[in-house]
Amino acid sequence: MTTDLKSKFLQVYDTLKSELINDPAFEFDDDSRQWVEKMLDYNVPGGKLNRGLSVVDSYQLLKGGELTEEEIFLSSALGWCVEWLQAYFLVLDDIMDESHTRRGQPCWFRLPKVGMIAANDGIILRNHVPRILKKHFRGKPYYIDLVDLFNEVEFQTASGQMIDLITTLVGEKDLSKYSLSIHRRIVQYKTAYYSFYLPVACALLMFGEDLEKHVEVKDVLVEMGTYFQVQDDYLDCFGAPEVIGKIGTDIEDFKCSWLVVKALELANEEQKKVLHDNYGKKDPASVAKVKELYHTLNLQGVFEEYESKSYEKLITSIEAHPSKAFSSSSSSSSSHTFSLISSNLES
Amino acid sequence: MTTDLKSKFLQVYDTLKSELINDPAFEFDDDSRQWVEKMLDYNVPGGKLNRGLSVVDSYQLLKGGELTEEEIFLSSALGWCVEWLQAYFLVLDDIMDESHTRRGQPCWFRLPKVGMIAANDGIILRNHVPRILKKHFRGKPYYIDLVDLFNEVEFQTASGQMIDLITTLVGEKDLSKYSLSIHRRIVQYKTAYYSFYLPVACALLMFGEDLEKHVEVKDVLVEMGTYFQVQDDYLDCFGAPEVIGKIGTDIEDFKCSWLVVKALELANEEQKKVLHDNYGKKDPASVAKVKELYHTLNLQGVFEEYESKSYEKLITSIEAHPSKAFSSSSSSSSSHTFSLISSNLES
Repeated sequence: MTTDLKSKFLQVYDTLKSELINDPAFEFDDDSRQWVEKMLDYNVPGGKLNRGLSVVDSYQLLKGGELTEEEIFLSSALGWCVEWLQAYFLVLDDIMDESHTRRGQPCWFRLPKVGMIAANDGIILRNHVPRILKKHFRGKPYYIDLVDLFNEVEFQTASGQMIDLITTLVGEKDLSKYSLSIHRRIVQYKTAYYSFYLPVACALLMFGEDLEKHVEVKDVLVEMGTYFQVQDDYLDCFGAPEVIGKIGTDIEDFKCSWLVVKALELANEEQKKVLHDNYGKKDPASVAKVKELYHTLNLQGVFEEYESKSYEKLITSIEAHPSKAFSSSSSSSSSHTFSLISSNLES
Repeated sequence: MTTDLKSKFLQVYDTLKSELINDPAFEFDDDSRQWVEKMLDYNVPGGKLNRGLSVVDSYQLLKGGELTEEEIFLSSALGWCVEWLQAYFLVLDDIMDESHTRRGQPCWFRLPKVGMIAANDGIILRNHVPRILKKHFRGKPYYIDLVDLFNEVEFQTASGQMIDLITTLVGEKDLSKYSLSIHRRIVQYKTAYYSFYLPVACALLMFGEDLEKHVEVKDVLVEMGTYFQVQDDYLDCFGAPEVIGKIGTDIEDFKCSWLVVKALELANEEQKKVLHDNYGKKDPASVAKVKELYHTLNLQGVFEEYESKSYEKLITSIEAHPSKAFSSSSSSSSSHTFSLISSNLES
């Protein structure tokens, strides 16, 4: 992506924000306008913006030529809708997880003046998405599909979050409930749909495509999302904190991580006992025992094998089913999309 | 409303619930299906259902004759969407307000197994609305308008909740910020739109009407909603707990209630000091001083005058602007609508 497109993308944020704090559907006053503006600046634009930018990227790949100013604006606006949706999830997730920091600053609800108002701010963020869509896409032939798409993906994300939360409740009583199948469902619904499928689906709709005809695109993107979440799980334990930017706590937090699922699959009875006795405990000695078991079971090697198989599988599906969505460009551009998304979106 | 219509309305809940826990957009398993079912039964149908039933009522008044089975089902489904929306607001409001009970049982988030998962359950409830709309209304000519309507009203409600929350923050530092104008905005946005306007607007859309042509209907319904919230504020302090079913705590909670706003308007400097010193304090002596001042200022008489003026004004607007929405029935049925909604919705 050119720096020009990126700087235009960033400008669109200011336009959208200004429209939202002057939305005629509500009577704003100075206090409420300032509150929303601060809340947006704190929560929306501070990430890597990869999900948002990938709408513009994908649209450009579909079109295959120079974008008009209107196309840049509209694809950027859709990109920001994805970022807004993500901000809403993060604000509420941080409350639910009792997190402390996010993107290198205190979580929004941790600010003394904010507190539980953050829950309503999350709702406001969520409500901004249809406001943006209505303002800029109401007359477009794909308007309904766009609204339905955001609704469906949000439903899937919330459902993924739900099984993540209830699986942890159940798992705390009985670790053996964790399985590859439940891990795949959590990851697919909680992360892959909104992070990988949604941006490309937005671009497809804007390009006039029918999403029903691109089921294979969805499958590949969901597969990519799954792969990157497995990588994320792996790095939580084996990644260098100075590289991944955080200290992983999946073991302490009793998370249904790909690693514990694989460990349960590979462990003998004695090793399973080690997991049952030590997984989800805060004390460093227990965490160390779990990590030691991961090493004994060679989970690093198992991950590397998963990684290369998954990569091959993705390349094969992409090349075997050259999607109509990418028919306007050469087959090399579909692998371009792949590398673009894969390099960009790792959380 | 006939008992037959009411029992059919209740049956529609079971149909919708069963569809939602088998929604093909998500891979449910037994645990997640049971969780959602329990959560719905706990939070959705336990209220008076007046908002939901008034969609069916309003549609019947618009049509003026016997409803077909399909019309009963569809208007009931829309009614349930309003109830689902309300359930979502209540689940999240209770978390934000740290409430203990709701509808005579512990708040959902207070159940030991639920806790903060309730925030995500609120999101799930909210996501059910577009799922219901899509399943049953996707092909209707008014589908987009219906989706836009729910989005707009939700945005207004969340914005009303926001100014309520930030006004209380500001008011705690400076009580004199409370004013009739901010009270009107809170009430109008937080309560009136979704409780009074939304059910009737749903019926209008289903009847094939254009909402843009019924701005006066909206104005009257919002006015009704305001009137009933003022009554609610009044009863919080002056209603008998055994009649209103709760012990009011607006004074203790520093609420921007109609009473404190009126008191600030009518008080002399000395009386204002009493308010500043005692409003928002938990101790019974402070609460008693505030109540004593309310009596001295004759707020009961002021309320009665407001009540009768407001009632007159509503009747006059209804009779002066016989809405096209009600043109199929006699002018007496519009006052029927009025008394129906007014007697039903005082919550």
